[in-house]
Amino acid sequence: MAFAMLLPAAVDLSDGNRDWLVFVHSAIFTGMISGLVVMATQNNTVRFSPRLGFLLTASLWLTAAFLGALPLYFSHLPLSFAGAFFEATSGITTTGSTVLSGLDDMPRGILLWRSLLCWIGGAGFIGLALLLLPSLRVGGIQLLHMESSDKSEKILPRVNQIALGIVLAYTGLTALCMLSYFAAGMSMFDAINHSMTTIATAGYSTHDTSLGFYAHNRLLLVISTIFMMLAALPFVLYIKAVMPRRLASLIDPQVTLFLFLVVGFSFMLAILLRVGSGLPFGDALVTAAFNLVSIITTTGYATEDYSLWGPLSIGIFFLASFMGGCAGSTSGGIKMNRLIILWRLTIANLTRLIMPHAVVKIRYGETEVSTEAAQTVLLFFFLYMASLILGAMLLATLGLDFVSAFTGALTALSNVGPGLGDTIGPSGNFSSFKDPLLWVLSYLMLAGRLEIVTIVILFTRSFWAR
Amino acid sequence: MAFAMLLPAAVDLSDGNRDWLVFVHSAIFTGMISGLVVMATQNNTVRFSPRLGFLLTASLWLTAAFLGALPLYFSHLPLSFAGAFFEATSGITTTGSTVLSGLDDMPRGILLWRSLLCWIGGAGFIGLALLLLPSLRVGGIQLLHMESSDKSEKILPRVNQIALGIVLAYTGLTALCMLSYFAAGMSMFDAINHSMTTIATAGYSTHDTSLGFYAHNRLLLVISTIFMMLAALPFVLYIKAVMPRRLASLIDPQVTLFLFLVVGFSFMLAILLRVGSGLPFGDALVTAAFNLVSIITTTGYATEDYSLWGPLSIGIFFLASFMGGCAGSTSGGIKMNRLIILWRLTIANLTRLIMPHAVVKIRYGETEVSTEAAQTVLLFFFLYMASLILGAMLLATLGLDFVSAFTGALTALSNVGPGLGDTIGPSGNFSSFKDPLLWVLSYLMLAGRLEIVTIVILFTRSFWAR
Repeated sequence: MAFAMLLPAAVDLSDGNRDWLVFVHSAIFTGMISGLVVMATQNNTVRFSPRLGFLLTASLWLTAAFLGALPLYFSHLPLSFAGAFFEATSGITTTGSTVLSGLDDMPRGILLWRSLLCWIGGAGFIGLALLLLPSLRVGGIQLLHMESSDKSEKILPRVNQIALGIVLAYTGLTALCMLSYFAAGMSMFDAINHSMTTIATAGYSTHDTSLGFYAHNRLLLVISTIFMMLAALPFVLYIKAVMPRRLASLIDPQVTLFLFLVVGFSFMLAILLRVGSGLPFGDALVTAAFNLVSIITTTGYATEDYSLWGPLSIGIFFLASFMGGCAGSTSGGIKMNRLIILWRLTIANLTRLIMPHAVVKIRYGETEVSTEAAQTVLLFFFLYMASLILGAMLLATLGLDFVSAFTGALTALSNVGPGLGDTIGPSGNFSSFKDPLLWVLSYLMLAGRLEIVTIVILFTRSFWAR
Repeated sequence: MAFAMLLPAAVDLSDGNRDWLVFVHSAIFTGMISGLVVMATQNNTVRFSPRLGFLLTASLWLTAAFLGALPLYFSHLPLSFAGAFFEATSGITTTGSTVLSGLDDMPRGILLWRSLLCWIGGAGFIGLALLLLPSLRVGGIQLLHMESSDKSEKILPRVNQIALGIVLAYTGLTALCMLSYFAAGMSMFDAINHSMTTIATAGYSTHDTSLGFYAHNRLLLVISTIFMMLAALPFVLYIKAVMPRRLASLIDPQVTLFLFLVVGFSFMLAILLRVGSGLPFGDALVTAAFNLVSIITTTGYATEDYSLWGPLSIGIFFLASFMGGCAGSTSGGIKMNRLIILWRLTIANLTRLIMPHAVVKIRYGETEVSTEAAQTVLLFFFLYMASLILGAMLLATLGLDFVSAFTGALTALSNVGPGLGDTIGPSGNFSSFKDPLLWVLSYLMLAGRLEIVTIVILFTRSFWAR
């Protein structure tokens, strides 16, 4: 992050914006903190324990959000610390909700920093999902990770190898996305920023109207749709392509479900849009697919206010905000693998009620799902819903109307970006929100990003017990 | 039900209302149907199977709703069949949502029939929860039922005994409630109707303003609050009191939680009301407790529009709509016993993540909860939430605004009565809803009443497989 801060510093310096000093100071501070942590832990050989893993994960994201907020807070922007922290958290969790408006006239350093936060957060989360979460046995992810890493002791020798694979795949996809954007007519600066927030499924834009700024450019929307989808697929697929060794032999059923849902919903929305607005079907399909993919991958770009497409569309976008993309990608939400397991689990349990003596196994692809793994998925669902309901209640108590409170909590928890309603809908933003609201939403974004369990566990007595 | 239909017939006849004939015809039709079923099954010895149990349960409630709708449909009321079916379903599932307005001037026969539907539905559900559901192993209820009925074979000899206990306790409580209402100043007709809908936690009233009609009568509200709470406690408690034999030795933790929540929420609301409206604290407490208890017990009376008490109160009433009362009572929602198990399960699973080798048992009172039982609770929660989200989405698609769609689905699924928002909030009703909306809500009310699993299972392939 310290190195990354030097990029906006350089941009602001060349643009003659005095905020470049803020970035340099933040970089020095961040570098010093990091240096101190490295020095303090250098000679310690720490035995890995779940407790350490959870603490590490939570403090890593919290620290990143805090450090990421510094340049925003100390810049010339009129942001409270809650606002700056919200913006940085939204970036680092790849949510993409913003408290800023007037993006089109904003210094390029700030814009680049927002995009970099997303990009770093996305890479970090894939690393977390593939390397750390499996050994912490958190919610279903263990189904996806590489073979032989079931025992935490065996992961360590391969960490560097897998980390390299992630970096290569992630950087490669971003570069490819950037070049495609540029070739399709984006300015270089816009292409750089949007490629980073696309691959991170984050959704920050350099324009107040998001990709609506390029709504006339159908090719660009198609390219964006494709890269958002690629970013929401399990990254194991790409790591396999980048690295020579066979890492995972799993054919992943979640990819099939994901593609099926995207195609199905897109066509439904395209038909609605065709009938409602009289747009040619081709144009309607491009617009429908772009906005749907943006929400289901939890990116959060918008070309227009899709909540005006009629009641069914609101329902579909509402549902898509719960779903999310595939596990092992940068997207948030419940995710495809969990949806599959929840569905199989329901069928299995209902069958068991009818035929009490039948032995019903729950399969995910070719793997059998253990009772314990199934229970962690159900537990995730419970914590997700409980967080949503209590979060919405808290936001309503702090003064939000019902729609903003409920979809605000949902969009934060699923790391999507926009909610529904006049304020935080696809054509709105979070700039009118008071500090307490921003804190609650920041918490929900962090909880959602870290699979909830990782955050909630910090509040239990047994976590802090000796 | 056929006999029950003769009561409103008698009332309408003495009032000179020509609808009395409708009730008589409906009674004859219902009696004939029942007679045919009895004749057709008389000489069959059917072996009990889970499949039969599920089919019986679902068809019993569906038939009751259909037959209960007949007098409403054929009366002089301007109801579509969807409207009549909704009203009867709302009664038989003890929800209490109504499509009728102008209740104060309505023929007494209709009013009495609505109350009777609730009362029959409430008794039926307690019978279902204590006698049938345990042997179907549906969602957590098995924790509550009488000892030695764990094996379905052993229930049958005791069925009559327990059924008698239910009838005595249920009738006794209703009579006591009626006398108290009458003594506190209700007219005899109102006391009869309200006592039936109180003990059934249904919430139908004989006035458009619900118990707001008696809002000046503080004593009456206190009495109603007490009886709603009594109706939301596990009926095993009363059966033990009525019957000499020791039936269950379980001290039930859900009663403690229920009382704790009622007292806590009531005081919070009373303080809000005191601060907001300047009411004396005693009056504020009575009003707050009455409206809160009405929602958390899923009765659904209201004295005023509590959604005007401020944002926190909306949050509390929203949360209370999920919760419900105790299992083994007439109330709906998730229910206290499940909330306790969900909480314990969460703690246990989180502890297991921190200490992988620890043996963590989940206890409910003095009983240990098996993994299988815990999973049925999680499964119920999943189906409840999935029904809520899909139901809300469907209602929104059919044209409802977000608040009405979401809280409408919630209030139906939890069998509460009122939702939030201008249309179906505490001072509104469902009279403006079109037929498709009423069908969806009727489905949700039935699903909610029958613990969802019982209905959803009918849609699985294995249920209909040979």
